[in-house]
Amino acid sequence: MTDLREMGERAAAVRTGLQAMSAEKKNKALLLAAERLTERSDEILRANGADMESAEQNGMSQGLKDRLKLTGQRIGDMAEGLRQIAALPDCIGECMEEFERPNGLKIRKVRVPLGVIGIIYEARPNVTADAFGLCFKTGNAVILKGGSDAIRSNAAIVRVLRDAMEEQGISRDVLQLIEDTDRRVTVEFMKLKDYVDVLIPRGSAGLIRSVVENSTVPVIETGTGNCHVYVDKDADLDMAVRIVYNAKTQRIGVCNACESLVVHSAVREAFLPMLEAALREKSVELRGDERVRAVLKDAVPASEEDYGTEYLDYILSLKTVDSVEEAIDHINRYNTKHSDCIVTEDRGTAEKFLNGVDAACVYWNASTRFTDGFEFGFGAEIGISTQKLHARGPMGLRELTSYKYVIYGSGQVRG
Amino acid sequence: MTDLREMGERAAAVRTGLQAMSAEKKNKALLLAAERLTERSDEILRANGADMESAEQNGMSQGLKDRLKLTGQRIGDMAEGLRQIAALPDCIGECMEEFERPNGLKIRKVRVPLGVIGIIYEARPNVTADAFGLCFKTGNAVILKGGSDAIRSNAAIVRVLRDAMEEQGISRDVLQLIEDTDRRVTVEFMKLKDYVDVLIPRGSAGLIRSVVENSTVPVIETGTGNCHVYVDKDADLDMAVRIVYNAKTQRIGVCNACESLVVHSAVREAFLPMLEAALREKSVELRGDERVRAVLKDAVPASEEDYGTEYLDYILSLKTVDSVEEAIDHINRYNTKHSDCIVTEDRGTAEKFLNGVDAACVYWNASTRFTDGFEFGFGAEIGISTQKLHARGPMGLRELTSYKYVIYGSGQVRG
Repeated sequence: MTDLREMGERAAAVRTGLQAMSAEKKNKALLLAAERLTERSDEILRANGADMESAEQNGMSQGLKDRLKLTGQRIGDMAEGLRQIAALPDCIGECMEEFERPNGLKIRKVRVPLGVIGIIYEARPNVTADAFGLCFKTGNAVILKGGSDAIRSNAAIVRVLRDAMEEQGISRDVLQLIEDTDRRVTVEFMKLKDYVDVLIPRGSAGLIRSVVENSTVPVIETGTGNCHVYVDKDADLDMAVRIVYNAKTQRIGVCNACESLVVHSAVREAFLPMLEAALREKSVELRGDERVRAVLKDAVPASEEDYGTEYLDYILSLKTVDSVEEAIDHINRYNTKHSDCIVTEDRGTAEKFLNGVDAACVYWNASTRFTDGFEFGFGAEIGISTQKLHARGPMGLRELTSYKYVIYGSGQVRG
Repeated sequence: MTDLREMGERAAAVRTGLQAMSAEKKNKALLLAAERLTERSDEILRANGADMESAEQNGMSQGLKDRLKLTGQRIGDMAEGLRQIAALPDCIGECMEEFERPNGLKIRKVRVPLGVIGIIYEARPNVTADAFGLCFKTGNAVILKGGSDAIRSNAAIVRVLRDAMEEQGISRDVLQLIEDTDRRVTVEFMKLKDYVDVLIPRGSAGLIRSVVENSTVPVIETGTGNCHVYVDKDADLDMAVRIVYNAKTQRIGVCNACESLVVHSAVREAFLPMLEAALREKSVELRGDERVRAVLKDAVPASEEDYGTEYLDYILSLKTVDSVEEAIDHINRYNTKHSDCIVTEDRGTAEKFLNGVDAACVYWNASTRFTDGFEFGFGAEIGISTQKLHARGPMGLRELTSYKYVIYGSGQVRG
């Protein structure tokens, strides 16, 4: 089996150098890596072809094959991603706060890398370049464990990136890939607490659960989204239709898509037929409670389980409530603390909702689909955190950093 | 066994109200709680007397008994702690950032409570009032699991605090104590992920390790400190003696005490005898490498294990190095990322050390004993974080908070 502690030692060995590396040097290295990715795309495509062949033989579903497959265009997109990261400002070393104590101690709170970041993901080779770019830009060493179905693609991408680092006089060990596909190695990776400062799982709810349950390394949970839109009695109903239509159908397989509609009973009869007409275009299946079905004859009954389900499909659950308070309680019971929206023209009602709903992002009159690092203007995104510790919502570069206190004295001792 | 999910439900039920509670109301409640603690100290002392009796029968060590024992004075200190917390500024609801996107979305990053905080600690009843005060002030519901040896003391303190809340029209469930001393309950508590947003263990390294290994709730690790002082070749040796003396002996049982001295070979012969003379006063045992023992004939040999040990005792390990780089490597290998110090008059050497050492707090010419929420001016402290996620170093009120993004739209949908 792979010696993970040895990989950990190698990551630790490059940490100090990475932390001190100038923004200029890091950006140049990212640009060169982008260039090499496109130059060596044949090599990457060959490796990906072999992965695709195995996938075919193993009967992988079409959806997963779509995610696994690389093309010249997709490799170009990876390279462009690295260029975009290079163009972002560097936040490492910035002084976040500075204060002086009565005893003369000067204390500076300085932004530093997290150190060594572990990323566990599924068979999506584009994550490989992307995760490397974000971690490298923030001065972190990274150890990747990708899905075994993409192992040859990932190994090829990592080889190109590591070669590009070496070409610049940077240690190859800023990026390491666990190539061993033995599941025990993955579990061992989750216990590599002496070397890894944080683990970020990217993928299905099952993958994330497994990491949370097994890891002794601190984890940032990302990406499960049971997002709600609440249409209030004072909603602009045309706006509400546009928002729900967008949040439900613009892209169904993403964590910020709307999975559940909550509607105030007072507008139920006016609103639901409008919504049904709009969603019919995309053949969205509607699953509602009794009061919803009294209006929408074609809707099927919604179970308790429906309200807790992230469909990632053309399905919407619907719930009727009699007040914003009831809407808040329902949402807090079933949401995944990701993104929830109220549509209303009443500021007081909106404020109640925005304060009361416990989620990373709460919207007033806008689609939940905006929960995204790029849409927020962060210029990058490693994922959407659904936990409250460390980072919440879209995680960009700053969310991949920590801080240290640097204390300047002149011989002070404690009395 | 205790129904922890029911406790979780009760904590969840008070969360929204707590988050929205005004600073004035929270502060008034804390002041009343302080008053009631002193008024009802007889009741608390009686309960503590029963705990002390059991401790006596169970042959508890003197050190632990000292921590368990309450007196009128100590209850007064608890009350004073609550009053100090009441006097601190409230940070909940503050706007941390605000920006507008080209599509007109206004995004505010607002400070919110973490939600429900779980605290697992040992037989120190003073933590009970302290942890409640900090969590309540930051709008968090708290579930406490204290050491079983202090169960009657904790129950009495919690009863007084909950009564004081109820007297103010605040739900008793803002504070809950797990009174069941069955160890399985503690383990179950660590898995209460649906209800608890963060677990903070306070206590021995063993307790913290157990929480890290068992918990599926995100954990903040606190309080293990293998702290170093490095005496550089350009150190002011008198200052170095004062700093090491203070960091080692001012209070030995605390996490920010110095456990290991690293000395540059060039000043070894001049410095070590000065240090030995000073530490003799406190009978500090010195354990050194060969080059240390060549100078200090009474020192005993230091093993690899010594360098990794947090003694919390009158013992100091000593290591000789030939450069600041070697000092940094040694410290990064053995420290617990808590607090490390360089004594030098050379700014360039100091900067190398401050950048290179991976610790929450890095000191130039000051005692490591200053790593403390009060010494930093935070006015409070829940612990010293030794991890990099979420919070690092002394944790005050802000470190018990999270944030949410509030997004104000006018019907925006994603294209």
